Amino acid sequence: MTNPVVVEVTRGDRVESAHRGAGAVVDADGGVVFAFGDVDRPVYPRSAVKALQALPLIESGAADRLSLGDAEIALACASHSGEDAHVALASAMLAKVGRGAGVLECGAHWPLGDAAARALVRSGATPSALHNNCSGKHAGFVCLACVEGVDPAGYVRPDHPVQRAVTEALSDVTGARLDADVRAVDGCAIPAYAIPLRALALGFARFATGRGLAPARARAATRIRASVAAHPWAVAGEGRFDTEVMTLFGASAFAKTGAEGVYCAALPEFGLGLAVKADDGGRRAAEAMIAALLRRFGGFGAPLDRFVAQPLVNWNGAKVGALRPAGPLAGE
Amino acid sequence: MTNPVVVEVTRGDRVESAHRGAGAVVDADGGVVFAFGDVDRPVYPRSAVKALQALPLIESGAADRLSLGDAEIALACASHSGEDAHVALASAMLAKVGRGAGVLECGAHWPLGDAAARALVRSGATPSALHNNCSGKHAGFVCLACVEGVDPAGYVRPDHPVQRAVTEALSDVTGARLDADVRAVDGCAIPAYAIPLRALALGFARFATGRGLAPARARAATRIRASVAAHPWAVAGEGRFDTEVMTLFGASAFAKTGAEGVYCAALPEFGLGLAVKADDGGRRAAEAMIAALLRRFGGFGAPLDRFVAQPLVNWNGAKVGALRPAGPLAGE
Repeated sequence: MTNPVVVEVTRGDRVESAHRGAGAVVDADGGVVFAFGDVDRPVYPRSAVKALQALPLIESGAADRLSLGDAEIALACASHSGEDAHVALASAMLAKVGRGAGVLECGAHWPLGDAAARALVRSGATPSALHNNCSGKHAGFVCLACVEGVDPAGYVRPDHPVQRAVTEALSDVTGARLDADVRAVDGCAIPAYAIPLRALALGFARFATGRGLAPARARAATRIRASVAAHPWAVAGEGRFDTEVMTLFGASAFAKTGAEGVYCAALPEFGLGLAVKADDGGRRAAEAMIAALLRRFGGFGAPLDRFVAQPLVNWNGAKVGALRPAGPLAGE
Repeated sequence: MTNPVVVEVTRGDRVESAHRGAGAVVDADGGVVFAFGDVDRPVYPRSAVKALQALPLIESGAADRLSLGDAEIALACASHSGEDAHVALASAMLAKVGRGAGVLECGAHWPLGDAAARALVRSGATPSALHNNCSGKHAGFVCLACVEGVDPAGYVRPDHPVQRAVTEALSDVTGARLDADVRAVDGCAIPAYAIPLRALALGFARFATGRGLAPARARAATRIRASVAAHPWAVAGEGRFDTEVMTLFGASAFAKTGAEGVYCAALPEFGLGLAVKADDGGRRAAEAMIAALLRRFGGFGAPLDRFVAQPLVNWNGAKVGALRPAGPLAGE
């Protein structure tokens, strides 16, 4: 099936570009509250499931044994901007198991955040694996391995005990079978499993409520949500959508971006999970989609308006167009 | 109509993201040699028509009166990376009419090129209008105004003599009627006119051959093509697609990117013009589309392979997927 146009970008009176996509809002029993497009085709959630991938770190007791704080737990779920404080947190996590940046297998890239990248340039340094937006997740994997008494080397491989635990948690929470048939490799070298949006939304409804999860896993989900709500800056960074939304709504909304146009979210007070993907991988479309759904299903109203329908300005600051929801989201 | 999927992005064995789009290859008599998707819907070509917008600067004699060199003429057609040498060229153009950066009405932004942006950060400076990727085009507009004895102030407005001349040239070459009904505002503040891809391709076929153009306009087109072929770095920058393609093929291929997924190109030896747009505005899709068409219709073969089908690597350098042409371009 062809997914509908869900976000339009206008210039003057006409649509300049349009994004197609799919999305689902699901309750913790698997009931589909709202859906558009093909929500049964497996898609790679990429970084949008980092909070689920962090469950073993918490439920194993490793986080408590290392006295990881809320900010560190939030960083373990982060696609951070590479600001100095993100780097320091990742470094501190590794220090708690006596390791340095050399243990990380995520590769290095310039900070996602423009200001952070410029600050790094000014310092005269070049990016390390600690600046990789996934360094907190990887530091969490290393912490888990070390507390469990497992050599962290190769922790990105599907058959490493850490990845086996992470994959089991992801499969359990989403209900999706995650085997080699749906496995590829993520940007940060860990396995990337393709999962239908419907299952991802169910997973985040369970993550939001604990329903259908074993008690230790449900408690871990609660702990992760509380940690992120307390440190919304840690999961993304200054000016980023995830940080701004969770700063606005605290524990009432959880939102996490993934590469190639994916967003997942949870609304604990409504017991709902949300998952969207823009067909073309466009981040701007994914943000507008998830903002529209959060506004409607979380009852957040006006504070989300500027993320749902965004004016586009040129380099002189003049309004030249807009980004707006369309099709099944037009009424949102 | 729904445009076909033309570029797929894979991860592992599956398609992670897909781009839809349209494109046309047209000869100088308007004969459509190849087309896919809706090529009759007006789209904003954005910066892809800068070479056509530079015609008045040349055909008026202003460029010769100011002794603009080939590199400066190429810069007048550029979406440059903001490298030091681009900035110096734009500044030199303005100096020839006794003006400074303050006359530019394009606004400022950080250099498009990552290396250039980092160099600017290291220098301790902030971006000026000279770093705007459009500064060469704007410098050309200012040069034209000054040589013609017109106050350059307000040269971005549709009713300024410079924009009237530019719009007349664009309309003449493409055969498209350009009035307020199809007008919006571009990122750099000049008018942006929506033009069907079929007409854009025709325009670049005429630009490639001079057929259907008045003699002075045809000579100006030849001069612009020669200038860009001599300085392919000036129209884009280090590592950029336009620069790499024209460095490879010299005067045999002209290619110019525009924002929101547009590319226009010309194949002088075959008398063909090309125009594509990715529906979603994705640059990666536009590049792959135009590369596929240039390879086929320009007979360029293997040197373009790496732009048509691109391996995608993760931060560790491992191949995790690919970008490849699909649908009507799958056989290219």
